[in-house]
Amino acid sequence: MRTMGRHFLLDLKECNKDRLDDLDFIKDVLHYVAKDAGNAVIGESFHRFLPQGISGVVLITGAHLCIHTWPEYNYAAIDVFTYGDLFRPEEAAKLIIDRLESGNPSVVELKRGL
Amino acid sequence: MRTMGRHFLLDLKECNKDRLDDLDFIKDVLHYVAKDAGNAVIGESFHRFLPQGISGVVLITGAHLCIHTWPEYNYAAIDVFTYGDLFRPEEAAKLIIDRLESGNPSVVELKRGL
Repeated sequence: MRTMGRHFLLDLKECNKDRLDDLDFIKDVLHYVAKDAGNAVIGESFHRFLPQGISGVVLITGAHLCIHTWPEYNYAAIDVFTYGDLFRPEEAAKLIIDRLESGNPSVVELKRGL
Repeated sequence: MRTMGRHFLLDLKECNKDRLDDLDFIKDVLHYVAKDAGNAVIGESFHRFLPQGISGVVLITGAHLCIHTWPEYNYAAIDVFTYGDLFRPEEAAKLIIDRLESGNPSVVELKRGL
């Protein structure tokens, strides 16, 4: 297989519930991840649902980040998809786990390609 | 495991190269998928790279769609992440494969949750 992209799937349990429902905080985390990797954010979209929960996507040069949060379960599903060498998904995953204070993170890496 | 989301990973080989590099076409496909599922598009971001290739993300009520295309390899990596019952990811996957004319599609379904 020719690897075109590296895809990290983060299933983060036992997160900080308040952080999972704080739209500005979630935005800041994903922007910080992009900035930390030295990459430009091309576009983004975020939404806070009622009564709770946030969905967001950020398109970055060489990557995308997606998040869906369920504060009521202290759970978030996050995707870090990268291609090229600029973006280090391991660092991004660690940073997100740390910021969301997950006490029980699961990280799976998949290779994407042909 | 409590399933919170269904995540379909599409690795589409042998696609129509021209379609993979047509920004309007790719946008239309993802919007059609959202509309076909009766769901509202909350936000989106698309970018065409030079000399070729498109990245795009669409945030939908109950789902997100992401695409990265490599026309030079006739290849596209697509993610269909859904939660709730409104969005039928199998139908979305079939429709995308059909529109991109993939002669060699790979579809993997993962459960996301805690």
